[in-house]
Amino acid sequence: MKRIGMLTSGGDCQALNAAMRGVVKTLINGKEEVEIYGFIDGYKGLIYSNFRMLTGHDFSGILTKGGTILGTSRTPFKTIKDPDENGLDKVEAMKQNYHKLKLDCLVILGGNGTHKTANLLREEGLNVVTLPKTIDNDLWGTDMTFGFQSAVDIATEAIDCIHTTAASHGRVFIVEVMGHKVGWLTLNAGMAGGADIILIPEIPYDIDKVIAKIEERDKSGSRFTIIAVAEGAISKEDAKLTKKEYKKKMEKYPYPSVSYEVAAKIQEKTGREVRVTVPGHTQRGGSPCPYDRVFASRLGSEAGKLIVDGEYGFMVGYKNREIVRVPLEDVAGKLKMVAPDASIVKEAKLLGISFGD
Amino acid sequence: MKRIGMLTSGGDCQALNAAMRGVVKTLINGKEEVEIYGFIDGYKGLIYSNFRMLTGHDFSGILTKGGTILGTSRTPFKTIKDPDENGLDKVEAMKQNYHKLKLDCLVILGGNGTHKTANLLREEGLNVVTLPKTIDNDLWGTDMTFGFQSAVDIATEAIDCIHTTAASHGRVFIVEVMGHKVGWLTLNAGMAGGADIILIPEIPYDIDKVIAKIEERDKSGSRFTIIAVAEGAISKEDAKLTKKEYKKKMEKYPYPSVSYEVAAKIQEKTGREVRVTVPGHTQRGGSPCPYDRVFASRLGSEAGKLIVDGEYGFMVGYKNREIVRVPLEDVAGKLKMVAPDASIVKEAKLLGISFGD
Amino acid sequence: MKRIGMLTSGGDCQALNAAMRGVVKTLINGKEEVEIYGFIDGYKGLIYSNFRMLTGHDFSGILTKGGTILGTSRTPFKTIKDPDENGLDKVEAMKQNYHKLKLDCLVILGGNGTHKTANLLREEGLNVVTLPKTIDNDLWGTDMTFGFQSAVDIATEAIDCIHTTAASHGRVFIVEVMGHKVGWLTLNAGMAGGADIILIPEIPYDIDKVIAKIEERDKSGSRFTIIAVAEGAISKEDAKLTKKEYKKKMEKYPYPSVSYEVAAKIQEKTGREVRVTVPGHTQRGGSPCPYDRVFASRLGSEAGKLIVDGEYGFMVGYKNREIVRVPLEDVAGKLKMVAPDASIVKEAKLLGISFGD
Amino acid sequence: MKRIGMLTSGGDCQALNAAMRGVVKTLINGKEEVEIYGFIDGYKGLIYSNFRMLTGHDFSGILTKGGTILGTSRTPFKTIKDPDENGLDKVEAMKQNYHKLKLDCLVILGGNGTHKTANLLREEGLNVVTLPKTIDNDLWGTDMTFGFQSAVDIATEAIDCIHTTAASHGRVFIVEVMGHKVGWLTLNAGMAGGADIILIPEIPYDIDKVIAKIEERDKSGSRFTIIAVAEGAISKEDAKLTKKEYKKKMEKYPYPSVSYEVAAKIQEKTGREVRVTVPGHTQRGGSPCPYDRVFASRLGSEAGKLIVDGEYGFMVGYKNREIVRVPLEDVAGKLKMVAPDASIVKEAKLLGISFGD
Repeated sequence: MKRIGMLTSGGDCQALNAAMRGVVKTLINGKEEVEIYGFIDGYKGLIYSNFRMLTGHDFSGILTKGGTILGTSRTPFKTIKDPDENGLDKVEAMKQNYHKLKLDCLVILGGNGTHKTANLLREEGLNVVTLPKTIDNDLWGTDMTFGFQSAVDIATEAIDCIHTTAASHGRVFIVEVMGHKVGWLTLNAGMAGGADIILIPEIPYDIDKVIAKIEERDKSGSRFTIIAVAEGAISKEDAKLTKKEYKKKMEKYPYPSVSYEVAAKIQEKTGREVRVTVPGHTQRGGSPCPYDRVFASRLGSEAGKLIVDGEYGFMVGYKNREIVRVPLEDVAGKLKMVAPDASIVKEAKLLGISFGD
Repeated sequence: MKRIGMLTSGGDCQALNAAMRGVVKTLINGKEEVEIYGFIDGYKGLIYSNFRMLTGHDFSGILTKGGTILGTSRTPFKTIKDPDENGLDKVEAMKQNYHKLKLDCLVILGGNGTHKTANLLREEGLNVVTLPKTIDNDLWGTDMTFGFQSAVDIATEAIDCIHTTAASHGRVFIVEVMGHKVGWLTLNAGMAGGADIILIPEIPYDIDKVIAKIEERDKSGSRFTIIAVAEGAISKEDAKLTKKEYKKKMEKYPYPSVSYEVAAKIQEKTGREVRVTVPGHTQRGGSPCPYDRVFASRLGSEAGKLIVDGEYGFMVGYKNREIVRVPLEDVAGKLKMVAPDASIVKEAKLLGISFGD
Repeated sequence: MKRIGMLTSGGDCQALNAAMRGVVKTLINGKEEVEIYGFIDGYKGLIYSNFRMLTGHDFSGILTKGGTILGTSRTPFKTIKDPDENGLDKVEAMKQNYHKLKLDCLVILGGNGTHKTANLLREEGLNVVTLPKTIDNDLWGTDMTFGFQSAVDIATEAIDCIHTTAASHGRVFIVEVMGHKVGWLTLNAGMAGGADIILIPEIPYDIDKVIAKIEERDKSGSRFTIIAVAEGAISKEDAKLTKKEYKKKMEKYPYPSVSYEVAAKIQEKTGREVRVTVPGHTQRGGSPCPYDRVFASRLGSEAGKLIVDGEYGFMVGYKNREIVRVPLEDVAGKLKMVAPDASIVKEAKLLGISFGD
Repeated sequence: MKRIGMLTSGGDCQALNAAMRGVVKTLINGKEEVEIYGFIDGYKGLIYSNFRMLTGHDFSGILTKGGTILGTSRTPFKTIKDPDENGLDKVEAMKQNYHKLKLDCLVILGGNGTHKTANLLREEGLNVVTLPKTIDNDLWGTDMTFGFQSAVDIATEAIDCIHTTAASHGRVFIVEVMGHKVGWLTLNAGMAGGADIILIPEIPYDIDKVIAKIEERDKSGSRFTIIAVAEGAISKEDAKLTKKEYKKKMEKYPYPSVSYEVAAKIQEKTGREVRVTVPGHTQRGGSPCPYDRVFASRLGSEAGKLIVDGEYGFMVGYKNREIVRVPLEDVAGKLKMVAPDASIVKEAKLLGISFGD
């Protein structure tokens, strides 16, 4: 008999349910009996021992369902190490609940923040297996995270819609794409949607280069320009600031988000009307795309195998088209970014896409 | 031989191309020869005699294409009656170009503003046939406008995506839906997306009623609430203001749009975190849905018949599931709104949806 | 307190769940308490008293779900009036179970066959309210049935996909569309998908006219032809046969379905390669389109109102854009067909579409 | 100045246009001038010197368009080496036309058959660069082909639709998926669609094992079973036959395709009603998915670079997430199949999927 705790933490994304279904189906098809403790709303559920007992039935029919049946939350505290508002030591509470329930291991699905905490729990002696969930694809140690391709699909669809209206009106249109501090999502959705300019955090932009591209298109007879802007995009000037200087600048930041800043600068310098569209949270929602369903199921299955084998302390990842086991200590605290000279960036440039650099 | 001028004016939407294809296919299949003059970017093209000669070939393969092959613009002047920045009398210019090209009639596709101008041209003696294009469905004289159902589909898809993320996080989520000054789009997308609260201009909202609904859901164990807010939604207090008072208030309006105002009020009064998503211009873009393709084709075909028959001065509309001819003077300047006691509103309320009233 | 039995019968379609949710939400929001008896797999459940008690919770989150949570079956007997294989009088059994459970009424969702039985139960003294479910849109007494628009969307998507491959290969392609004995689905999907030829049961086709259209397209430089064929399409010769003659002919029918017959005839007479695609049951599946979600919810809500008011013996229908109550005896046994001279057919012809007549 | 011939050959698929756009955009952004000769309908165009001159404009706006703007054909002759019906030596004709037009190279987009011919032309001294196009993903030398992921999406959507109807009726449903002689497409769509049984050519099936799985599901209370069957699936007995024996057997094959054979066997042995759906050619059509748009664009860009660098004789492929150059002689005549013990197969089995083995 194995007792397995499971939780989803951080911003939700597509295929969380598919991944958990993969874990549980594999465990159920294994030889040992299992008990599944589903902690509600991420680490919170583990801290306050808020859980539901789950059976195979709970995981039936959820392959195609967006969101997470367990609920999730971003860590609702300054850091996981600080005590909560009642002075409770949260890490200690998690350890105690883990031991009180006699758990054999925890299956934790999450992104970067989640993995830091998962590694901390591992260091504290808990058995942990994790799965790489994020639309940002910024987790170190895996070529791909689930949620990413589904988010690319949604962001691309938004750009597709904007394409026809931009062409009809002869306008400059900005579509702001999610992705946190990295450019994977914007780069891929931008290329898929036929964006003319792509601005990502890893390649700070020069607004004059952006405008030069717009004007080049005007001259060539193209009536419109589509710009895909990552929510974390940054100008060359801002990229030179120290953290402190940048923070100070952002205190008085007059724009709702970076896209509006880019739009304002273009309007100011060219007099052209620029429209901004922000698909926002729709990018994390809806049914996972087929790619993510297969991918998350495979990762989940491998996590199940790890548990059956009693091998803990790993994130299940994807390297060179193989499902792999990555030591948690190698993952935690690192960020996988787009290299400015990556071949995909070079290819995008050959296709005529400007990065404003 | 007939000479036909054609133009699309106002904000673009889906199925403009499908409608024009319907007109032209019908004309080509008629007995007389036709010459098609496609004016570029709406009335601007007619004012400045900027056009392309079009053949049947130009309309082949565009049934499924979003946007408009002719381009469009919102009237780029304060009113169509004022002279342009060079002192040109725009109405006079349109009349002269019409006569210079020996046009037999104009086919004009547009929404409310467009129809006012179309009726003006009719009063000036030009032969005009119009088609009701708008995602807002606010044109008087027709049960339906093309673009509307496609926009409902896109807005609903956004709500669907938000649904899974709202449920996972237990959040209040607002989706702002287009629709100009009327609530058709929000009402339909809200009902289709399973929104719990729908705020539309025709039914001013009381923020306390909105909050009461959220709290009722909390108590019943529903972890989240979805609110569909029309871009033209208005509070009961604001609805009581005179136009002048309202305008003055809006001068210092601190929110990007009404959704953010609703969000701020809920947060302030309940302390709950509220997220806002604005699908924006995506709602006018992309390939028309099958409903709109059939509908716009049928309207276009009827417009072609009107021209063949030499009957002018009509908008082609849709009444009680029949394609009908509506005198332009009956259409211009009127707005088709959601009646607060319409049966669809009553049914929505029976389904448990709150309108905040 | 009201006791309500509910069942879905016949081929499943989209928005059955949305409609049932509409009924139940309206009942729950009414003043009286209700008990919902959900009969499993259509009339079978009522005959053999196979049911589940349902609460509001069972209807939460199913607005967007395809299929039916109650299961369905085509009447599994020669006719409902004949005894079953054990000699049981099925109508009598339904009456007894209805009375044994002290039901106040039955809510029955189904198409033509279902409505015949529903009317029979009404004649036997049971209280019945029905909802018009079918992708075929062939129910008399209502302008529209739910499921229809969702099926149009799926069939159109199939034609869209075939369009690109037909164009690339310069082929004649047939897409067989469902619709039982009527042409609504094929007519709308064909027009939406830009089919060049549409064959429907109501307008028997002449294969030489079909071939003439293909050759006309060849001459005009169009490399391909798309034919939308209703599963019930029939040739002029076959339409002239008596029922008996036709039945005899069909006994030796060498084709899997009518599309293959049309394909064979074209190949035989022209030597051209013709490909057939049959989307089949996919047309009844998947999430309902936004139109159907709103429409089915509204119909369901009206059914709920009827029950609250104690008015029985009606199908809830849709006439001239209003939700209406249609006496069941007016609906049963009739078929709503496409009139060969309907305005939509005339418009389709003006658009250049051939019906092979 | 470089003169480049371009052609698409074999069955069409999604992202052919995206790939060609990638090649041409990269060439145009290169330093040298280019002339593009677009051969019509694949090798036929090269054999009979049927081509159009193309400019950058022809490749604008086609990123999202399905099909191929050049047209395609399966080699319309027994083999490319045999003379045509007029005795013309086709290989010689291609060589002569290549030299007559003073081409610097040929860009050839196609699948397995196409690559054999492309390699033949290379051996004959022509400069050739190829791109791996096929929904089957069966090309040796590349981890992925474009078209594959788009086809997975369409096949999965079909399974999704069938899922709701199968569940409602409690039926066994077979969805026949394309993929020629390999199982990639069926395996991925089957896993994404939550199929319970997957039959692929690489793992011959035992019908009794298939039935055992259906009965196991029946016992566990699952009312329905979804079977994804590859068009090339084969039973264990048939797999043991010699080619000659198999060919003889197929001469009298009574079924339209293998799915109907599987259905008939299940019905015969269990008495259960089994339905078959064949999405067919829809799987090659429609707009490419975002993954394929990015992927094909990248491959196209690399092909452009090869031409700029004057490096010929390669297929551009994808290995370990890098775009690579694969010698044509290594690709031609080989088939990339699913290994029966591949990790994805093992994972699928852990998820409870039966392969009937």
